[in-house]
Amino acid sequence: MKILVINGVNMNMLGIREPEKYGTMTLKDLEKDLYAYSFELGIDMETFQSNHEGEIAEKIQSAYNNADGIVINPGAYTHTSVAIRDAVAAVAIPTVEVHMTNIHAREDFRHNSMIAPVCLAQISGFGAESYKLAIKGLVQFLSSRN
Amino acid sequence: MKILVINGVNMNMLGIREPEKYGTMTLKDLEKDLYAYSFELGIDMETFQSNHEGEIAEKIQSAYNNADGIVINPGAYTHTSVAIRDAVAAVAIPTVEVHMTNIHAREDFRHNSMIAPVCLAQISGFGAESYKLAIKGLVQFLSSRN
Amino acid sequence: MKILVINGVNMNMLGIREPEKYGTMTLKDLEKDLYAYSFELGIDMETFQSNHEGEIAEKIQSAYNNADGIVINPGAYTHTSVAIRDAVAAVAIPTVEVHMTNIHAREDFRHNSMIAPVCLAQISGFGAESYKLAIKGLVQFLSSRN
Amino acid sequence: MKILVINGVNMNMLGIREPEKYGTMTLKDLEKDLYAYSFELGIDMETFQSNHEGEIAEKIQSAYNNADGIVINPGAYTHTSVAIRDAVAAVAIPTVEVHMTNIHAREDFRHNSMIAPVCLAQISGFGAESYKLAIKGLVQFLSSRN
Amino acid sequence: MKILVINGVNMNMLGIREPEKYGTMTLKDLEKDLYAYSFELGIDMETFQSNHEGEIAEKIQSAYNNADGIVINPGAYTHTSVAIRDAVAAVAIPTVEVHMTNIHAREDFRHNSMIAPVCLAQISGFGAESYKLAIKGLVQFLSSRN
Amino acid sequence: MKILVINGVNMNMLGIREPEKYGTMTLKDLEKDLYAYSFELGIDMETFQSNHEGEIAEKIQSAYNNADGIVINPGAYTHTSVAIRDAVAAVAIPTVEVHMTNIHAREDFRHNSMIAPVCLAQISGFGAESYKLAIKGLVQFLSSRN
Amino acid sequence: MKILVINGVNMNMLGIREPEKYGTMTLKDLEKDLYAYSFELGIDMETFQSNHEGEIAEKIQSAYNNADGIVINPGAYTHTSVAIRDAVAAVAIPTVEVHMTNIHAREDFRHNSMIAPVCLAQISGFGAESYKLAIKGLVQFLSSRN
Amino acid sequence: MKILVINGVNMNMLGIREPEKYGTMTLKDLEKDLYAYSFELGIDMETFQSNHEGEIAEKIQSAYNNADGIVINPGAYTHTSVAIRDAVAAVAIPTVEVHMTNIHAREDFRHNSMIAPVCLAQISGFGAESYKLAIKGLVQFLSSRN
Amino acid sequence: MKILVINGVNMNMLGIREPEKYGTMTLKDLEKDLYAYSFELGIDMETFQSNHEGEIAEKIQSAYNNADGIVINPGAYTHTSVAIRDAVAAVAIPTVEVHMTNIHAREDFRHNSMIAPVCLAQISGFGAESYKLAIKGLVQFLSSRN
Amino acid sequence: MKILVINGVNMNMLGIREPEKYGTMTLKDLEKDLYAYSFELGIDMETFQSNHEGEIAEKIQSAYNNADGIVINPGAYTHTSVAIRDAVAAVAIPTVEVHMTNIHAREDFRHNSMIAPVCLAQISGFGAESYKLAIKGLVQFLSSRN
Amino acid sequence: MKILVINGVNMNMLGIREPEKYGTMTLKDLEKDLYAYSFELGIDMETFQSNHEGEIAEKIQSAYNNADGIVINPGAYTHTSVAIRDAVAAVAIPTVEVHMTNIHAREDFRHNSMIAPVCLAQISGFGAESYKLAIKGLVQFLSSRN
Amino acid sequence: MKILVINGVNMNMLGIREPEKYGTMTLKDLEKDLYAYSFELGIDMETFQSNHEGEIAEKIQSAYNNADGIVINPGAYTHTSVAIRDAVAAVAIPTVEVHMTNIHAREDFRHNSMIAPVCLAQISGFGAESYKLAIKGLVQFLSSRN
Repeated sequence: MKILVINGVNMNMLGIREPEKYGTMTLKDLEKDLYAYSFELGIDMETFQSNHEGEIAEKIQSAYNNADGIVINPGAYTHTSVAIRDAVAAVAIPTVEVHMTNIHAREDFRHNSMIAPVCLAQISGFGAESYKLAIKGLVQFLSSRN
Repeated sequence: MKILVINGVNMNMLGIREPEKYGTMTLKDLEKDLYAYSFELGIDMETFQSNHEGEIAEKIQSAYNNADGIVINPGAYTHTSVAIRDAVAAVAIPTVEVHMTNIHAREDFRHNSMIAPVCLAQISGFGAESYKLAIKGLVQFLSSRN
Repeated sequence: MKILVINGVNMNMLGIREPEKYGTMTLKDLEKDLYAYSFELGIDMETFQSNHEGEIAEKIQSAYNNADGIVINPGAYTHTSVAIRDAVAAVAIPTVEVHMTNIHAREDFRHNSMIAPVCLAQISGFGAESYKLAIKGLVQFLSSRN
Repeated sequence: MKILVINGVNMNMLGIREPEKYGTMTLKDLEKDLYAYSFELGIDMETFQSNHEGEIAEKIQSAYNNADGIVINPGAYTHTSVAIRDAVAAVAIPTVEVHMTNIHAREDFRHNSMIAPVCLAQISGFGAESYKLAIKGLVQFLSSRN
Repeated sequence: MKILVINGVNMNMLGIREPEKYGTMTLKDLEKDLYAYSFELGIDMETFQSNHEGEIAEKIQSAYNNADGIVINPGAYTHTSVAIRDAVAAVAIPTVEVHMTNIHAREDFRHNSMIAPVCLAQISGFGAESYKLAIKGLVQFLSSRN
Repeated sequence: MKILVINGVNMNMLGIREPEKYGTMTLKDLEKDLYAYSFELGIDMETFQSNHEGEIAEKIQSAYNNADGIVINPGAYTHTSVAIRDAVAAVAIPTVEVHMTNIHAREDFRHNSMIAPVCLAQISGFGAESYKLAIKGLVQFLSSRN
Repeated sequence: MKILVINGVNMNMLGIREPEKYGTMTLKDLEKDLYAYSFELGIDMETFQSNHEGEIAEKIQSAYNNADGIVINPGAYTHTSVAIRDAVAAVAIPTVEVHMTNIHAREDFRHNSMIAPVCLAQISGFGAESYKLAIKGLVQFLSSRN
Repeated sequence: MKILVINGVNMNMLGIREPEKYGTMTLKDLEKDLYAYSFELGIDMETFQSNHEGEIAEKIQSAYNNADGIVINPGAYTHTSVAIRDAVAAVAIPTVEVHMTNIHAREDFRHNSMIAPVCLAQISGFGAESYKLAIKGLVQFLSSRN
Repeated sequence: MKILVINGVNMNMLGIREPEKYGTMTLKDLEKDLYAYSFELGIDMETFQSNHEGEIAEKIQSAYNNADGIVINPGAYTHTSVAIRDAVAAVAIPTVEVHMTNIHAREDFRHNSMIAPVCLAQISGFGAESYKLAIKGLVQFLSSRN
Repeated sequence: MKILVINGVNMNMLGIREPEKYGTMTLKDLEKDLYAYSFELGIDMETFQSNHEGEIAEKIQSAYNNADGIVINPGAYTHTSVAIRDAVAAVAIPTVEVHMTNIHAREDFRHNSMIAPVCLAQISGFGAESYKLAIKGLVQFLSSRN
Repeated sequence: MKILVINGVNMNMLGIREPEKYGTMTLKDLEKDLYAYSFELGIDMETFQSNHEGEIAEKIQSAYNNADGIVINPGAYTHTSVAIRDAVAAVAIPTVEVHMTNIHAREDFRHNSMIAPVCLAQISGFGAESYKLAIKGLVQFLSSRN
Repeated sequence: MKILVINGVNMNMLGIREPEKYGTMTLKDLEKDLYAYSFELGIDMETFQSNHEGEIAEKIQSAYNNADGIVINPGAYTHTSVAIRDAVAAVAIPTVEVHMTNIHAREDFRHNSMIAPVCLAQISGFGAESYKLAIKGLVQFLSSRN
């Protein structure tokens, strides 16, 4: 079982700026943590970060026949990207959208997600823990489906 | 550490009707499962179900000084209840909103939540598993806070 | 064949106040009249009135396996209750929404019904007669379906 | 007592196309059925069908001093015709709007009626039976008014 | 100089119904009055009434090279007809939209006109007098243009 | 019979700027022309211009018991002034709103009038002639009312 | 003269939580204070609190023929309850809506009241004092009406 | 303690026109009444009326360091004036917005206030009594603050 | 294979007025051209023009069992006619909507089509060539379907 | 004569996924087919595909002085990209927007195009054939322009 | 070269209140500073402040033939005044709108300007410096135009 | 002191196309001009242009600890990019948004900026001069802050 974890735009700034919102853990720290967690769960994992909408769409396309599930935090593209939505719908791989902050408690334009309607599930608000919960939920979904 | 798990309107029909949407597990089955899970996590848990907006608000009020966290699936009240929102805000206990289905993939009026903006986090789309992920995330949040 | 007739919030004030809008027939009078009518049609009927959204949802739930059709005048809950809508959708019993007044000729916020989209049919504007027409239509629908 | 039954645009296709939505009864069958029903009720009835907004408005105008009630299924003009609305308001003859399907369960733009606000009542969702219920309700209204 | 006076849908009911809104003068009376007035002004006039959107559009088309100005009371089509708007724009004959009642003091959907944006001018609220003021204004405009 | 003619904000620039929109006639010219016209009609007339919303409201107030009719071109206040609307409604003197240009053919925010709903009538698009048509219509209305 | 004072959902939490918004006075303190005040004014008073929309509607219904005026703080139901609105309209007892905080200075969805349009008056922003001002105003209104 | 009472546009017509809405008490009567009332309360009071948005803004500015509280009935400027809103916010003197009629029971555009969000409180619907209740509430607020 | 080409309201003015928008080719020229083209393609073709919404709906109805495809330029009815939409949906014949101009580059209300959602395809902006491209595309679709 | 054919985001997945929507022809197949077609028409053609909004904008920029026409299927960027719109407007090369599916029959947010308003024409719904029709129409337009 | 600098409503409170938003520099200080700056640039300058919408419109009118450019901070009138917009458009003198604060970072209703669409340019967010940048930009524009 | 000047999508077309909107100065010319200007001001400057949303976000990220201020003309991304907004907010470097044209005088969708709310200031409408004014204002802001 292989999970692809995608981080979108500005997520490479994690832990560097705005620690009051996102904590002091860097993206590298987060990814290391997730590798440890996936090892523990006995699954394969790949991480990817890009600030480019097109690259993220292409990474999702490349997951076709290469991954069993996707965990994605699209960052700001959550609210604007039909391109990522269409990529997720096209590959039809179970996908979980995650957010570290509770997007429903922020500005109005962040409440809506263009991508969630074509996902399996959405988790927001648990900080870095959101990713692990998403991976766990996804693994259980994939296991129960087989 | 004590968690209160609240199920809202029509959740007592779980497993009885619309299994294609919600599965065949009944509310009783679900609650039994959650008790086992909380025993495993070494926490205290109480479950509650009501079809009445006012009773749910009162249950939340009663959690004040009596619970450390709340997991709530308000059912249809998610989209209409300012009363439940205000109760959650008033007691100021970390609360996680859960949904079995992905509400973003359903009718437009289900995309929005009146309650999520005053919650810690929101999880939707993992079926019955959504509750366990919520409990796990909440426990980790409460632990890290102490 | 059994029909459940549900009257929602403020319908217990029927005939007591605002006779220029709803006439002088009380709810008791109306229910008596409907019993006579159902006797005439050779069907079973049960009436129920509640001012509580949750109780109405529960009554609808209880109809599951106990009634063949529902006639409902949700009163003010027509325009706000996702809970009643979900209960009707869950039990999947043919339901007719009725209104004594023509809701399309009143304030804008009364034109829309949250519940009608999951009903079989809607009748509004015939005063107390709306109920009998609804029962008749429902009986014919149920008969033709068998 | 004389009732005018008006069918609007595309109603002449009834029973010819889309039987899954409207059944296999043709407009001729329906009108024959309604004549039998009005004979049974001891009233006079005239039927009329047109695909032309202007002709429908004129038929309504001609009902002035010639009919006691109108039953109208405006078809698609329901949602767009201020002209038919104004004709109904001008002649001030009690009018019932009918629809075979439940318009509230279809596309959003079909939920609203330009004509219902100036009608006595509205019935939708009982298939061909909607017409008979409308006639019956109208006859009872007219009788009770005298 | 030739003026075409067009009355739209339901204007043939003028003086017959709703005298509290439109007075007791019939359409025939009005047209006779306008003929007298145009005789007095020394201009040619033709009157036309139709309840059909398509016929009104065709009458406007026919005015091309045949009339110097148009006075039109489109009735209910004022608010819905792009077809009449396009006909007026196509023939490019100076056109004045008139209304007997003050449309700004009626229902919201009557405040807006689809046709006025392609007209020379609009007059509303002077009752039958609106037509004469429109003719007078149009004649003065045409005279000053030459 | 006395008519008060009020010109609102920027109308003192008439004939000085934007002749392609409003012509080369100055406000003084216009007022002189209207005095001649009212002399011809045998009525009393007073003209007033102000760029101040409050002064216009006060002038309307002062018309109470002092004028039989008002012709007003509020200029830009047409679209924003509830104050002038309330003043017109308070004195309850028949008022005609006039515009030199066809406001329906300009920017969207100019289509709507805050003041027209409490007026007797509205005329727009005849240039300076709009005023005379308004006076004429108003005089005829006042005469017929006596 | 008898006044009914109704407090809606979450008002039982008064003084217990969120003192920075609502002060430290409990609901019991407030009611005691209002009894003293009504004694001083020489009027009869009854207090009632419920978290249930249906119970509040029923209490208003019960006021019919039993109370001369109603003071109501519907809490969160202010913004969502057509049921309470209809109950107030049905009993036709002069009702004053009160709020401790200035609802116009809070979230957008709290600016609007479903209930105020059928009330005599509305007071918001004076803290606990709002109730006394409402009672005083209501008493003066009722006195002057007799 | 000094209170400034400001009446906005058209309030000088009070008692002169529309007595069915505002009663027969003139502005002079009202102000005399308020002086008596403030004498009774042992406070200083100044009254001011203007039909000019700018003058009202300037009066509010002048209250800075000169008054302890403001009671304002902005009249029609309630719904349109950002200028008065900014003046109130700038001087930061506790201000109560009052209305004689229940603005929530009138036209839609009167439900909203531009000014209330920066006020301490709002009272509407008690007729002339609204002012006294506002003064009383304001005095109690100012007293408790010291 | 038989194609029906329908031109809607004001299309009979083609080439007569507004050549800067639509060119100088008349409707007759266009139809002659299309006959030549269909001869070349070896298909049967019928042309029809009407300014009447009802007639267009009836022509579409008549195509049922008589035509294999429809090319329609509804003119102004594109944006307003639910009647034509329903006729197209009822006969379920592959239909292509065409426009000579690019409707997306014109006024906002012309961007939307009521009819396109039930069509096979839409072409706009190629002038008279739009029709030929539509016929060609339709013929290829019909051929490939067999 | 040279035509540039641009395919946007996710178009490289053509024929690989979602064949029920887009068929089994791959992008390579499609491009080969279009080269054959352009050879047949005697024109020059270049194809380009990118998932990156910026690259597409740059390709359009590069067409300046290098291509006579553009055929573009922007994919998901159709609905969101002002950047591509501005690039098309800047180079001012006749451009045709194409879609394989009928975008008007899909989700609401796909009905609107940011790019079509600055294009010559738009074709949607003919599957892969849409491209050929676009090329043909464009070639005819360019030929007739010379 | 002469520049007119206009400050609108509440700008006379500058430096007196809300220093955290606008600093401690008074309007007099600001104007003195701007005079020094214009002396340095070798241009003529006049300053003007008014809290009255009408006076500001009149000042702009008076600039016709008397000034080469206008710098205006309309204060709250920015968002509501069609009158000032029309005055600017009428005199057709290059005008720059300035704001001390970044209006895009404040309340939603402050993001929009009624006046900017008829201005040459807009500057916001540089505090008192905004004026100098506006003057400099205006001078360069006027110089380059000659 | 170091300033980063970023030009967004299509800005590389400056001076090449649409000179009537943007002048004939190329991007290279503009940047050269800005380098001269910054030399004159004694500050460090770096210029950057990209058509890629992601690259612009990354450039802004890279400014963290490397630049004291940012001047950005995001081009079309102004209206759609939450990604660039978040990058600006994350690095928290004072940023000025500039536009050569007055965006408030163009299409409606260009009036709004996603990025301005997190900037220090915005300048639009001075052509190439906008950049220099932005640099000057930014330098003065940074100087005064130290």
